[in-house]
Amino acid sequence: MLYSHVTLLMLRVMDVVTKTSVQQSARMLVAEIPGDIQIGALFPMHRQIAGAEGCGAIWEQYGIQRAEVAILTIQELNKILPFRLGISIRDSCWTERIAMEQTIAFLREGVTQCSCCQTAGCQKKANPVVAIVGPAKSSTTIAVQNLLQVFRIPQIGYAATTTDLSDKEQFGYYLRVVPSDAWQAMAISQLLMHFGWTYIAVVYSAGNYGEKGFEAMERLTHAPGIDVCIAHAQKVKTMGENEEFENVLLVLNELNPRPKVVVCFCEGRSLNKLFQAQKALRMGKRSSITNYNNTTFDKGIKRIEAFQWIGSDGWADRLDVVEGVETEAAGSFSFRIHSPRVEKFEPYYYSLEPANQSIKNPWFREFGNKNLNVF
Amino acid sequence: MLYSHVTLLMLRVMDVVTKTSVQQSARMLVAEIPGDIQIGALFPMHRQIAGAEGCGAIWEQYGIQRAEVAILTIQELNKILPFRLGISIRDSCWTERIAMEQTIAFLREGVTQCSCCQTAGCQKKANPVVAIVGPAKSSTTIAVQNLLQVFRIPQIGYAATTTDLSDKEQFGYYLRVVPSDAWQAMAISQLLMHFGWTYIAVVYSAGNYGEKGFEAMERLTHAPGIDVCIAHAQKVKTMGENEEFENVLLVLNELNPRPKVVVCFCEGRSLNKLFQAQKALRMGKRSSITNYNNTTFDKGIKRIEAFQWIGSDGWADRLDVVEGVETEAAGSFSFRIHSPRVEKFEPYYYSLEPANQSIKNPWFREFGNKNLNVF
Repeated sequence: MLYSHVTLLMLRVMDVVTKTSVQQSARMLVAEIPGDIQIGALFPMHRQIAGAEGCGAIWEQYGIQRAEVAILTIQELNKILPFRLGISIRDSCWTERIAMEQTIAFLREGVTQCSCCQTAGCQKKANPVVAIVGPAKSSTTIAVQNLLQVFRIPQIGYAATTTDLSDKEQFGYYLRVVPSDAWQAMAISQLLMHFGWTYIAVVYSAGNYGEKGFEAMERLTHAPGIDVCIAHAQKVKTMGENEEFENVLLVLNELNPRPKVVVCFCEGRSLNKLFQAQKALRMGKRSSITNYNNTTFDKGIKRIEAFQWIGSDGWADRLDVVEGVETEAAGSFSFRIHSPRVEKFEPYYYSLEPANQSIKNPWFREFGNKNLNVF
Repeated sequence: MLYSHVTLLMLRVMDVVTKTSVQQSARMLVAEIPGDIQIGALFPMHRQIAGAEGCGAIWEQYGIQRAEVAILTIQELNKILPFRLGISIRDSCWTERIAMEQTIAFLREGVTQCSCCQTAGCQKKANPVVAIVGPAKSSTTIAVQNLLQVFRIPQIGYAATTTDLSDKEQFGYYLRVVPSDAWQAMAISQLLMHFGWTYIAVVYSAGNYGEKGFEAMERLTHAPGIDVCIAHAQKVKTMGENEEFENVLLVLNELNPRPKVVVCFCEGRSLNKLFQAQKALRMGKRSSITNYNNTTFDKGIKRIEAFQWIGSDGWADRLDVVEGVETEAAGSFSFRIHSPRVEKFEPYYYSLEPANQSIKNPWFREFGNKNLNVF
């Protein structure tokens, strides 16, 4: 009876995979170390792209490096563990939909191998995953957690810091190894108090991370001992147009009194866009400058002064946030989660060669081909 | 090949269902009219319960009545349609986790029947669902949408009004037949302006519905032509304790100047709790009154005056919100989505008898047994 049943889920996932473009099949790649106990992991190996179902450019820091550090860690652990620990890594592309697709693939895969290997001559490739690590982004993690808790599969977060996920009643199968944003908001408040910056503006990314981060910040301004006034708060779409980000800065610039300090509870991409907007506006440029009927034109020719930026962990150590806008970012503060240097990682990482067949990470080849200058 | 595969999903759902209590098996009940084209529907046949995985009391208005109106509509449609329209109704219990479980069951069920009926002697029960209607609550709908869009199954909302779900980039397979909360916030603002109530407080339920509703309200206060000042905004947990709701009212009561008007972007249950809190506080009672060391004791003996309440569609036409607290609710305004009377429904509904075997709705029997006085 059991063997005559195939779930719609599987049919549809197969359908999706077979029907679609190379881009989508590439998305179903897996980096795998088989073990007696298998864990799944979701990293954003590619960036998100606006308005499309696919994946963007390869992402070294959040994707390739995290996958490699996971592979290295598993290999190191297997030297001392009395059993073999395995890992299967999939690509979340920083997107809810794709992370869900990959989670379903994890669930499906486990069973395919399980039932197949009850017949003779079948070689077991890997055990079904017992837990899933990741994905990175808060909103994506919530989507995946809503599915995983139905199957009672534990999920461990390495970067999703939203306070929402601390609610054990709602997300009973989620645990994380990084502090929630309630602590980050507190750290930012302490910095503000330290410098006596009590009149500020807040910009935050749309989505759970930014919204709940702002909420935590706002709650703290009413806390005893904290004397910070949020003059204005503005939400931005991470994948928004340049013009939108310029408008945000123009609004902040015209507040009376004008806040000098802007706290940004933002994803890296939002902050990069804000820096770009500040760069343009400081030189009196506007993205909409060609539209002469636009009422924003008059504002466009006014030059604005730079703000003092304070950023959250969304961009704390990301070169791609400040590249090309270094002058705007100079002097900013940014927070990051305590993450001491992994001594073994650098020599390991720089010894990797895309042509080497022993490399476990299939995206590394794609990355290597596009970034040959790093080798 | 295909037939030898069984997904983990299926195994696990079976596991969950067989291992667990009667409460949980009852949860997997389905009301079904088989058809050539089958749609799935999720209604909260039971209420949510705090801190537990199960379902609460049976829910007449949002559950039983909605299921019956759906059954009646399908029966009426089938008199004029050139094909048979079918429906399978499942219980979401107003909870993300259970709604996800039921959605997976919809996906699984379709296939079980599909593959089974390729062997001789198998009778097809119903076709797989081609679309899903519901669930009711915004946050639950988002969880289900994140799963359904992977399988490209359209979802139609009858009550999830959050503005978030209007984002087609993020939720491409969702459509709704009711206006988003952006319109509701606008209607509330117009009412405020009409009465010249420009200094108000806002209370809103935790979760996507209340949070995004408040956000829409807040955005409108900066809109041209709207001159409303939100003196204070406070979030409440729908399943919170009485004391928390009393604290909210005490905070509002001590604002200077004290706002007379409170807009509540709330689920029905939150508003019921607020009315209960107001009732207690108007009489100088407090839930924490026995705790003499509590600093709230002094506040407890002060009587407060009633507020002028303006409520969102979360409680507009629900008797269970105002039962026992009619005096507090009297004079309130509440909004509801345009929903004209369905003439055929009342005679149909009141003719239903729990003992009648032709009744399609398995929860109706549970409801009938507990509410015999209505017959």
